Amino acid sequence: ASKKDYSFSNRGKTLEDEVNETNDYYLQHKVAVIHKKPIPIQIVKVDYPGRARAVIREAYYRTPSTTDYNGVYNGYYLDFEAKETKNKTSFPLQNVHEHQVLHMRQVAEQNGIAFLVVAFSTLERYFFMSSQTLDLYWDRMNQGGRKSITLDEFEQTGIEITPGYAPRVPYLDAVDLYLTGKESEE
Amino acid sequence: ASKKDYSFSNRGKTLEDEVNETNDYYLQHKVAVIHKKPIPIQIVKVDYPGRARAVIREAYYRTPSTTDYNGVYNGYYLDFEAKETKNKTSFPLQNVHEHQVLHMRQVAEQNGIAFLVVAFSTLERYFFMSSQTLDLYWDRMNQGGRKSITLDEFEQTGIEITPGYAPRVPYLDAVDLYLTGKESEE
Ligand SMILES: [Mg+2]
Ligand SMILES: [Mg+2]
Repeated sequence: ASKKDYSFSNRGKTLEDEVNETNDYYLQHKVAVIHKKPIPIQIVKVDYPGRARAVIREAYYRTPSTTDYNGVYNGYYLDFEAKETKNKTSFPLQNVHEHQVLHMRQVAEQNGIAFLVVAFSTLERYFFMSSQTLDLYWDRMNQGGRKSITLDEFEQTGIEITPGYAPRVPYLDAVDLYLTGKESEE
Repeated sequence: ASKKDYSFSNRGKTLEDEVNETNDYYLQHKVAVIHKKPIPIQIVKVDYPGRARAVIREAYYRTPSTTDYNGVYNGYYLDFEAKETKNKTSFPLQNVHEHQVLHMRQVAEQNGIAFLVVAFSTLERYFFMSSQTLDLYWDRMNQGGRKSITLDEFEQTGIEITPGYAPRVPYLDAVDLYLTGKESEE
């Protein structure tokens, strides 16, 4: 494989691209095994043309029932959703689906580590937010409060991820900090 | 949802159906959060017909780079592949792909629990086999030895899973035994 061009400012790359690159880095350096799940597809019609391989001729996108990424890091189960916004002051909660919030709760109940990676792409700022903290803002919305999480709230209750060259979005640094804080509470 | 018919002999059900039912049971009873990953698809052509939802018109199956199932059980990361054979005396290793074996090794290196669930469907017998044990048979094959794992070897070096009504294939019982053995070795 040819060497990839990791431009530091990374213009034009989606958060998904950046997280995938980060996961490749973690896999190759034996730091963690985290993969993106395939997009769920409902297949309706498949052709089997002679000796050629099967061709799917009719299929539809399905709503994912879980998050985009999961895997294992030093014995810990990690499960997260990566979301970006162009907003500069807040992250709209409509970017997260209810079933994803429920899934993250189920994971946390099993002592897995569930979280969001949120990119304020215009600002090039990235945050980790645990499922437990997300739940507070989700409940606030459901009780009639604001439908977003402010940048200030990310600064106060999330963990900032400093982007780098490689890995691009070192979210495991935030996971380490989260684990330290969690353990110190026990 | 209507009550499902869990016929004990389960004729006509694939192992995948049975494992999916088992995972539903574990999820609903808050025992574990394990999901099947979607099949990876390479999408080539999508139509966006007016107001209707997008229709995928040309797509191809891709080779999965990981296993079929993963998730979290009481803080443990689980990752497994479910395979069935109609053979009565051995399980052909050609049922397992090299990249899946490599993936399971990577998971084990991160202290995740990687394993096979193998069904001898004609016999209605089910086995758990850890990635570490599978590796021994995989290496034997690569060194010119037999290209299958015998039923006797499953009995001696795997953990038998006794099928039931619900959960149908209680593979977590085998995981518990595996963890006990692993811990007693340390
Ligand atoms: Mg997503
Ligand atoms: Mg498979």
